[in-house]
Amino acid sequence: MAAEEQAKELPQILILGPPSIFPYLESQFSNRFLFLKPWLYNLPLTQFLTSYAQSTQALLIRGGGNTQLTSTIIDCLPSLKLVVTSSVGVDHLDFPELRRRGVAIANAGNLFSEDTADMAGGGVAVGLLIDVLRKISAGDRFVRQGLWSKKEDFPPGLKLSGKRIGIVGLGKIGSEVAKRLEGFGCKISYNSRTKKSMAPYSYYPNVYELAANTEALIICCALTKETYHLINKEVMLALGKDGVIVNIGRGLIIDEKEMIRCLTQGEIGGAGLDVFENEPNVPEELFNLDNVVLSPHAAVMTYESKVELSKLVVNNLEAFFSNKPLVSPVVD
Amino acid sequence: MAAEEQAKELPQILILGPPSIFPYLESQFSNRFLFLKPWLYNLPLTQFLTSYAQSTQALLIRGGGNTQLTSTIIDCLPSLKLVVTSSVGVDHLDFPELRRRGVAIANAGNLFSEDTADMAGGGVAVGLLIDVLRKISAGDRFVRQGLWSKKEDFPPGLKLSGKRIGIVGLGKIGSEVAKRLEGFGCKISYNSRTKKSMAPYSYYPNVYELAANTEALIICCALTKETYHLINKEVMLALGKDGVIVNIGRGLIIDEKEMIRCLTQGEIGGAGLDVFENEPNVPEELFNLDNVVLSPHAAVMTYESKVELSKLVVNNLEAFFSNKPLVSPVVD
Repeated sequence: MAAEEQAKELPQILILGPPSIFPYLESQFSNRFLFLKPWLYNLPLTQFLTSYAQSTQALLIRGGGNTQLTSTIIDCLPSLKLVVTSSVGVDHLDFPELRRRGVAIANAGNLFSEDTADMAGGGVAVGLLIDVLRKISAGDRFVRQGLWSKKEDFPPGLKLSGKRIGIVGLGKIGSEVAKRLEGFGCKISYNSRTKKSMAPYSYYPNVYELAANTEALIICCALTKETYHLINKEVMLALGKDGVIVNIGRGLIIDEKEMIRCLTQGEIGGAGLDVFENEPNVPEELFNLDNVVLSPHAAVMTYESKVELSKLVVNNLEAFFSNKPLVSPVVD
Repeated sequence: MAAEEQAKELPQILILGPPSIFPYLESQFSNRFLFLKPWLYNLPLTQFLTSYAQSTQALLIRGGGNTQLTSTIIDCLPSLKLVVTSSVGVDHLDFPELRRRGVAIANAGNLFSEDTADMAGGGVAVGLLIDVLRKISAGDRFVRQGLWSKKEDFPPGLKLSGKRIGIVGLGKIGSEVAKRLEGFGCKISYNSRTKKSMAPYSYYPNVYELAANTEALIICCALTKETYHLINKEVMLALGKDGVIVNIGRGLIIDEKEMIRCLTQGEIGGAGLDVFENEPNVPEELFNLDNVVLSPHAAVMTYESKVELSKLVVNNLEAFFSNKPLVSPVVD
């Protein structure tokens, strides 16, 4: 049998987005599925779907942002029975319409809240903190721009060892951060809604007090009504001109405009930011600051988690095509 | 008394280099010393010295490299009684000539081998390792270049947690590195001349075996005849295509040409380099690689150590001008 004919017998998966894991998925699993890639065709999406995807039973879609699964798209897919999203969130799916048509939904399950991702998040938080304090990315720019060989002196950074660090949100990721910082001899304090009876760290019920008594704040909490703009002007002024903020939570937890003003005017010392108010758009004022490290929302995603997520996606697809229960179904 | 006349009565210190700590020193101690700054004058150095420094009893010089205290310079300074260098090394001083004239010498003493510096070195080693694995500096470039908002996906990095790490040289800095990595759940092994009976880590008498059994090598040893090009082609191939090297020791411990070849051809995964064979000249091939982090020999120097070094320099100067013993004299 020709390879092409063999491919036709593979289950057909429509790819929308595509998800960031797709290149890996394609390289590993093209022998098990036939992936439909609309972005390769010079056609409006609805026309592509009408021409090529009438028999498609399953689709894989990337997480939120600009990729939406609308009822217009769903209308073009009469055979659709399964939607797999590579995200935890499902806000980008027209849930009522999918339910009405009896389409099953699977997501990333609790993959990003498992130990492996917590550790990844903890690792990046510590990495961003060392990077800001010791100016590693700034030093890398300095060397690559050829300034070192011009015998300029690179200004020294601050030491992490022994510093007083405040963790905002001592959940699973926050605890992983704290554990790592203990190895640096840091004095850990934290703020959270309630005191954790098991945590061997100083508790501050008020984030302002935490900032006033520490040299760096690491934001690890979730975004809620209560944490929206929790890190405001007063908190930043309390942290002070040598103070550093690391944010691996959500952009909206910090008043970003005020933070940029504080960074520019030297009212805080620096920031390591994995998240922003309006991703993937990062305020351009940050691009020219040497006291910030900018990261493209990469704290939780590692090569290892990409491999795990790809396996989870494939396991859901295979379960569906062999009439078994989904591995990580989204239920109402 | 006018401020200018008052300044004339302060002890005069000739500055050569200048040392990287000089801006800080000047900002803090201009009320105690009158600093002579030859680089501000449009004169050959010897002419400056002959015109302005005939009565100078003390000079402060930066460490090695391109700044040398030659007999020609010494000849222009008939009143010279004290040389303070901001470095540990004194190779840049014409020692016999200074001795012959009875000039006292002070250096940075053991400042850079004290706990504070060890911890700083340990911190930067871990920071470079996280940075290379998780691509923090590369991610910062990606965001600053505006690529994220063009909806490109940034390729995920590797997780540090749980990795098998090999430490080359388990001295004071190496031990600080190991302690910090334990907090990340890493499995630590090491190579050194002799097994350390107290160290709770696996010992490999052979660095090749260490590389073959670990995912990252952290070079913390001193440069000796035995460690010159210790990290050669065979060791790098044993480390393998996902393996990472961090060097905070000395550039010549690695075969740099071979490392660049391995990095370019994907035979090792990445490198975080604080030291180079021919500093401050860094091979330009490294400037275009995304899998390296380049640091301008900054592991040991922090703001805190700059403050300490400045104090040590001032304490030596003050001891000299009040006829007390030097704090950190260089003796034969």
